[in-house]
Amino acid sequence: MIFITRKHHFCASHRLYNPSFSDEKNEATFGLCNNPNGHGHNYVLEVTLSGEIADDTGMVFDLKELKKLTQQEIIDKVDHKNLNVDVDFLTDIIPTAENLAIRFWKRLEPKITKGQLYEVKLYESERNFVVYRGENL
Amino acid sequence: MIFITRKHHFCASHRLYNPSFSDEKNEATFGLCNNPNGHGHNYVLEVTLSGEIADDTGMVFDLKELKKLTQQEIIDKVDHKNLNVDVDFLTDIIPTAENLAIRFWKRLEPKITKGQLYEVKLYESERNFVVYRGENL
Amino acid sequence: MIFITRKHHFCASHRLYNPSFSDEKNEATFGLCNNPNGHGHNYVLEVTLSGEIADDTGMVFDLKELKKLTQQEIIDKVDHKNLNVDVDFLTDIIPTAENLAIRFWKRLEPKITKGQLYEVKLYESERNFVVYRGENL
Amino acid sequence: MIFITRKHHFCASHRLYNPSFSDEKNEATFGLCNNPNGHGHNYVLEVTLSGEIADDTGMVFDLKELKKLTQQEIIDKVDHKNLNVDVDFLTDIIPTAENLAIRFWKRLEPKITKGQLYEVKLYESERNFVVYRGENL
Amino acid sequence: MIFITRKHHFCASHRLYNPSFSDEKNEATFGLCNNPNGHGHNYVLEVTLSGEIADDTGMVFDLKELKKLTQQEIIDKVDHKNLNVDVDFLTDIIPTAENLAIRFWKRLEPKITKGQLYEVKLYESERNFVVYRGENL
Amino acid sequence: MIFITRKHHFCASHRLYNPSFSDEKNEATFGLCNNPNGHGHNYVLEVTLSGEIADDTGMVFDLKELKKLTQQEIIDKVDHKNLNVDVDFLTDIIPTAENLAIRFWKRLEPKITKGQLYEVKLYESERNFVVYRGENL
Repeated sequence: MIFITRKHHFCASHRLYNPSFSDEKNEATFGLCNNPNGHGHNYVLEVTLSGEIADDTGMVFDLKELKKLTQQEIIDKVDHKNLNVDVDFLTDIIPTAENLAIRFWKRLEPKITKGQLYEVKLYESERNFVVYRGENL
Repeated sequence: MIFITRKHHFCASHRLYNPSFSDEKNEATFGLCNNPNGHGHNYVLEVTLSGEIADDTGMVFDLKELKKLTQQEIIDKVDHKNLNVDVDFLTDIIPTAENLAIRFWKRLEPKITKGQLYEVKLYESERNFVVYRGENL
Repeated sequence: MIFITRKHHFCASHRLYNPSFSDEKNEATFGLCNNPNGHGHNYVLEVTLSGEIADDTGMVFDLKELKKLTQQEIIDKVDHKNLNVDVDFLTDIIPTAENLAIRFWKRLEPKITKGQLYEVKLYESERNFVVYRGENL
Repeated sequence: MIFITRKHHFCASHRLYNPSFSDEKNEATFGLCNNPNGHGHNYVLEVTLSGEIADDTGMVFDLKELKKLTQQEIIDKVDHKNLNVDVDFLTDIIPTAENLAIRFWKRLEPKITKGQLYEVKLYESERNFVVYRGENL
Repeated sequence: MIFITRKHHFCASHRLYNPSFSDEKNEATFGLCNNPNGHGHNYVLEVTLSGEIADDTGMVFDLKELKKLTQQEIIDKVDHKNLNVDVDFLTDIIPTAENLAIRFWKRLEPKITKGQLYEVKLYESERNFVVYRGENL
Repeated sequence: MIFITRKHHFCASHRLYNPSFSDEKNEATFGLCNNPNGHGHNYVLEVTLSGEIADDTGMVFDLKELKKLTQQEIIDKVDHKNLNVDVDFLTDIIPTAENLAIRFWKRLEPKITKGQLYEVKLYESERNFVVYRGENL
């Protein structure tokens, strides 16, 4: 078994707040990230598959395919967007890096036809990142 | 003469559009950056001073001071903000990296008391950046 | 379960040697790192927690809190210091990256109140790093 | 137990193709990587060992030794080489990152005398990398 | 006046040698880079324009256009190629980073319609790079 | 004319203080960098030459030679050292990045036999760096 990873980039804006919280609680919980007019990030997304190497290609999964799949399922939807309002599969969550990673996993996982999705890693900045490996970790 | 640089980070959202343009012209001019609900970036700002080294300190300008100055004059104003609406010294411009760099220069330049401001470099992403060196370049 | 990581920086000096070794054995064991007057590094410290996401915040642990905790417990103690003599919780060890990572884990682990400490990763340089995940790995 | 990693660099050229495939199938499978005259990369290789820390040195394995070992067994063989024809232990495989990682593991693993080889991570570019942890993962 | 830069990536193989040199002189001059079967790199190309900011767009030159232009004129020609034999505008030179940078400049410079080409920066690796600013520097 | 750059790394410790200052003035001037037992950094040194390309080699200056020269004249002297006491050509200065860059220039400049030394760039950390281009800038 081997792990292969492809890195992607997108930039987007978001605001962290819970509409059922008071303004004070939103401020205390989310701090600067609660700015009413939003802020943004250059996100980095790493998608990792695990699997066996096919003898005739030396590959687990065609990286060109993985790139295209991630581009279509995720990057084209979120790049240069406002994550609170512009992305249909994100409108019901608080767009923290944690929640984004899980939703990205859920979109990609059923599309992986060789090997399996092992990990989604999402950098919100160079200093903060999250990793999700599915429910069966 | 020697050049010293201090690097800073901030994250912010923006939308590129000219209210006097038609929707079609805004779309043609600014492309993805014209998304009505905005998008965002992790910006990197490098501030460079030039000057003579003081014999008794081995320094041109106290980097602690430069850090504090850039923090107060720029980073505290723009970090976790929407650059179209939240920052008083940016509301009258289209917040391209070019325009941001010039405004940052104009805020910092009068505050430099030793040496002179040589360059403001602003990365909008790892792939795009601008440099401004003032009018007398 | 999800993993969240916060990256920190500090710079410090150290010397690697064992006072019970002969000079020759210290030289053979630690090489350049045995320089009597020491040398130093820009260390990078990544602290990773694992846990469940709280529904009402979308977060495992408030990153502002994690940042403050790591800053107080570790960074404020070791930044711009000599690791052989200036840091009370390090004076009885040889300050290799391995030993530092374990001591950092031991300081942080009891303070994590939501989720659990999963990993401490310490870069001594861009080319060398260590990872510690506790005794129950 | 702790993990220590040493990073190495090498540059090399390769071509991905399977001589038993038709030209069309090679093109469809390997795309741009099938260019008949080859292309190349600046590879980054990270070698990770796991083990117990020796009390008298604070180290799992002498990093100077690990560096020398990786240099001799791998880097000196592959750096500034054509991976399809110049490297005796690679001539029978398609030189994908996946296959390279496994061959590098097989060369290093028997030489590790303290602790054990835990992971070989090979970056083909900043955007693509693979990880191999041996058969007993 | 302001400077704007767009960064691009490509990977390619090359061999450095002068057919009019003896084997010994090629070896002495080009060292490892003279390997007969070639080697390769992940090149990074930064293209910088200088110019005035247009008031109605806040931009010197549309970065989308610059990206497209560099992609068409350079990246599509050299990416995943052997620089000694596959690229029509490079076959008569020794493909050192220095020579590549000048040829890239010559292809781009006539196509810049607003502002002017200021600099071509080419990284052969993270450790080696060249800068060319045209003949009138 | 073209510019070629070679990057080097070294790690070292230092303390910033002026023995003719009072303790209070040293503290006020150098802050954390005045820690009596020192601290340290992973320095990055970029050496840039300018010159004409030789037709028969496609190079300004043999990078292997530049690497060897910088290694001998600078890196071997400062790597894994205490810059206040271990390096003969630095003992009479306060080892700020500014002063180090100038001393490195002075050691290298007379040894450059083709082209000329254009710039010495010294990173004390990822966030702070200085540039020196000689007296005739």
